[in-house]
Amino acid sequence: MASFKPYRVPTRDSGKFKLSKLDPGATPFSQGSEEKQREELDELALELDRLQNRLHAEGRRKLLLVLQGMDTSGKDGTIRWVFSRTSPLGVRVQPFKAPSELERSHDYLWRCHAVVPAAGQLMVWNRSHYEDVLVPVVEELIDKKERLRRYGHINDFERLLTDTGTTIIKCMLHISKDEQRARLQDRIDTPSKQWKFQRADLDVREKWDAYQAAYERALSATSTAHAPWHVIPSDSKTHRNLMIASLLIKTLQGMELRTPPADPALKGLVVC
Amino acid sequence: MASFKPYRVPTRDSGKFKLSKLDPGATPFSQGSEEKQREELDELALELDRLQNRLHAEGRRKLLLVLQGMDTSGKDGTIRWVFSRTSPLGVRVQPFKAPSELERSHDYLWRCHAVVPAAGQLMVWNRSHYEDVLVPVVEELIDKKERLRRYGHINDFERLLTDTGTTIIKCMLHISKDEQRARLQDRIDTPSKQWKFQRADLDVREKWDAYQAAYERALSATSTAHAPWHVIPSDSKTHRNLMIASLLIKTLQGMELRTPPADPALKGLVVC
Repeated sequence: MASFKPYRVPTRDSGKFKLSKLDPGATPFSQGSEEKQREELDELALELDRLQNRLHAEGRRKLLLVLQGMDTSGKDGTIRWVFSRTSPLGVRVQPFKAPSELERSHDYLWRCHAVVPAAGQLMVWNRSHYEDVLVPVVEELIDKKERLRRYGHINDFERLLTDTGTTIIKCMLHISKDEQRARLQDRIDTPSKQWKFQRADLDVREKWDAYQAAYERALSATSTAHAPWHVIPSDSKTHRNLMIASLLIKTLQGMELRTPPADPALKGLVVC
Repeated sequence: MASFKPYRVPTRDSGKFKLSKLDPGATPFSQGSEEKQREELDELALELDRLQNRLHAEGRRKLLLVLQGMDTSGKDGTIRWVFSRTSPLGVRVQPFKAPSELERSHDYLWRCHAVVPAAGQLMVWNRSHYEDVLVPVVEELIDKKERLRRYGHINDFERLLTDTGTTIIKCMLHISKDEQRARLQDRIDTPSKQWKFQRADLDVREKWDAYQAAYERALSATSTAHAPWHVIPSDSKTHRNLMIASLLIKTLQGMELRTPPADPALKGLVVC
């Protein structure tokens, strides 16, 4: 398997991270023919199901997968394909949209804390608290001081989660501006895909560079030893799926999950 | 395909329903060899995925699947296999355990209402508000008057949901007392399955007949035209899965889901 290391964002103290140096078109995790890659993804999805069952059976630890990325970067597609073989019994998806009035009337981590994974759960956040250090930064609704303060809140919040049994995997789905153009155009031109398109997506696209800069800063400031960021080259959908599935599996394997041991007191118990 | 009609509980006005007359070992929905049945289930699971995608794309209506049944009747197994091909993107599972202190401090429908499906969602309730007309009835914590009052609340609550775009499918997973004995014994005797077993399950088993009576009354009183109950013969796991998958598919097909129509205003729009 290829190495995740080049795609792991250095922890915030290093200050050397450049998002633009990572090629969105790279495919280090996809090898061989398309058919072989499809088979591999199906195998990984089945392995993920087995590992998730063990997480559920153990019923003690939690896994949180955070997916961030520009429009059309493939957050929904990742969830669809990486979790194509896992039952919704133990995997839950939480989308974060523009905050509601009720949500805005609380601090910006309130709605996130309410939906962190419970014991034995694998939770996927489709967008996340990171929207609050992207949109307001690009729209210049917060100044530098507030931005840095938020990075601090986020790192503290994630520390609380990891200290209390949650493993956090954060993936930034990295696509090129040209790939986004093609995908938006496809949504416009294909009647059955138009429901995925919103005119506001074009306004956000106009601020592409500002968003890339905001991502670069946010990833660099919040890639910590306890909750590191990975940048996922995502111009190739297959590569994106294979890399994220592999990262999940590697992480779950590292957790050394065990079903709870047999209870000696149950030996010989007969049901009437 | 076999007919669902014999397994649909007559609406409450008829008063003729006898749970004991339905054979838990019946297999009207499973035909042919085991291999053929496995293939059929996989096809149904894939079809369910396609229909659920359309529900999601339409983004307007909601589907609620309520699963009830005695311990070991296969609620978890149903979710695992019937939804083995659907992505957690649009399917969500909500388990209901013994109510917490906070939940008990509200009315018994409060925690349910909080987790009804949103537009475009398929929500599965693993146990449900029906626990509140089963456990307290068997334990004689409520009298007949209160029991009838609760049936009324439940029917009214479900009427609110169906009036506002939710289709409700309610399935009672019907197993025999002997099948439960075998499944509990298997959980005790198999170390890797012991985590699913709780000693309290044996206490509930001792009240088998009282639970069957409570189910019979509850199903009869709450099988309405807007939210009917189906009894699913579940001694055969394959049959249970095939019947529930078929019922879901039939229901979703009946909803005539359509992806939103193309927007003429987008014609010719070019992304820069």
